[in-house]
Amino acid sequence: MNLLLLERAELTLAGEVTLRDHRAAHLLDVLHVSAGQEIRIGIVDGPYGRGRVLDLAERSVRLQCEVDDRVPDRPRVDLLLAVPRPKVMRRLWAQLAALGVGRVILTNAERVERPYFDTHWLEPATYRPLLIEGLQQARDTRIPLVSIHRRLKVLVEDELDGMCGDATRVVAHPGVTARFHDIATTGRHPRVLLAVGPEGGWNRFELDLLERHRFTPMALGERTLRTDTACVALLTLVHDGLSARTSADP
Amino acid sequence: MNLLLLERAELTLAGEVTLRDHRAAHLLDVLHVSAGQEIRIGIVDGPYGRGRVLDLAERSVRLQCEVDDRVPDRPRVDLLLAVPRPKVMRRLWAQLAALGVGRVILTNAERVERPYFDTHWLEPATYRPLLIEGLQQARDTRIPLVSIHRRLKVLVEDELDGMCGDATRVVAHPGVTARFHDIATTGRHPRVLLAVGPEGGWNRFELDLLERHRFTPMALGERTLRTDTACVALLTLVHDGLSARTSADP
Repeated sequence: MNLLLLERAELTLAGEVTLRDHRAAHLLDVLHVSAGQEIRIGIVDGPYGRGRVLDLAERSVRLQCEVDDRVPDRPRVDLLLAVPRPKVMRRLWAQLAALGVGRVILTNAERVERPYFDTHWLEPATYRPLLIEGLQQARDTRIPLVSIHRRLKVLVEDELDGMCGDATRVVAHPGVTARFHDIATTGRHPRVLLAVGPEGGWNRFELDLLERHRFTPMALGERTLRTDTACVALLTLVHDGLSARTSADP
Repeated sequence: MNLLLLERAELTLAGEVTLRDHRAAHLLDVLHVSAGQEIRIGIVDGPYGRGRVLDLAERSVRLQCEVDDRVPDRPRVDLLLAVPRPKVMRRLWAQLAALGVGRVILTNAERVERPYFDTHWLEPATYRPLLIEGLQQARDTRIPLVSIHRRLKVLVEDELDGMCGDATRVVAHPGVTARFHDIATTGRHPRVLLAVGPEGGWNRFELDLLERHRFTPMALGERTLRTDTACVALLTLVHDGLSARTSADP
């Protein structure tokens, strides 16, 4: 945990919070905080701030918090992902939040198996703590917006424009020559929407649908990666391409 | 499994192999192979080839194999990694093989906890099947060479030159401005040796030692990532930098 994240509702009006969960254990057993010490905090989906340790007990820590005015920007990359196997989805949540994703848009595809939608790893009560774990690792406060869409066609034709506006759209697809780093030079928009298909790939119809709606196919390389590895690799390249563009701007 | 890998010793002199393990189950239950069908195979650390299904039984498959003359090149990136937590090490093996790593050089550092070296995830009998799983995912045959070094100083001063020759050396370190994509333009050598520290980072002495031995610090970005996520991200950027250089060569 590199940043202590608090839910806004945990704070009293006076800015006090008493922690009794794994966060208290971390402060006590790993960071060995003492009364009067100041630590960096963040409010989930809110600003950064500072918390001063008021007092400690056996298994609890009371903090007096103050927060900044400004809420940090949401990460500039959104992910459209065909729902992967539950085991892979479980592994992904914290890593997505740590790498920085504005939205996680989960969808169906021909090669997504039906039971994948019924796992508890798609329930907010299960994935939200994993997202917060990832944010605390990466020192971010902005929790990804998550939505689940059972029909790819409806999502792409009717819903995506409202959600992702005019982001540069790319779809990972093997066998094309365009490379992800080219986003730095080809993209005109400050945001990128990255689509990642199921392990067996998008079918022809799905890829056509995406291409008709401004998704440019880009290849990662010749190696076929597991969905979680591929997501980490692709998000890294997109973020790198965006930061190259930013630093090249006048 | 996107490529069926066989150990050389599994083949008879006539090139036959009878599979009875999870690979047979995969051929029967997932790929639904039939007699006479030809499938792509590879020999671990050897060439690609083709296997023709001779006959099937309840839980076994017999193949007649022939292999190419040429063994594919070892991946051009080597990884020097401070031994991470056992849980992270377990997650990493298959991903490292899938992403493509020539050598995995595991080492000690101040912030590596002693028990990390005692896990069974560092025993060849445990990690070799995971490496092969990653190779089968990514359709590669070259299994990473793994070595474990208890003393970083001895490794860097006395052993590394013999193992990694004149590879371009980079060390992941936050707060510097050099970016990984610059490997494409700064590196003179066809191989890269990437050093990744423990979760708490290298200490000052360790970083000095690496810098004195031609490791250039490069930053991944402002987010602090878990070691497994960081390794996937960094290896992706190094491979991407290398392939950008290759495609830019005359």
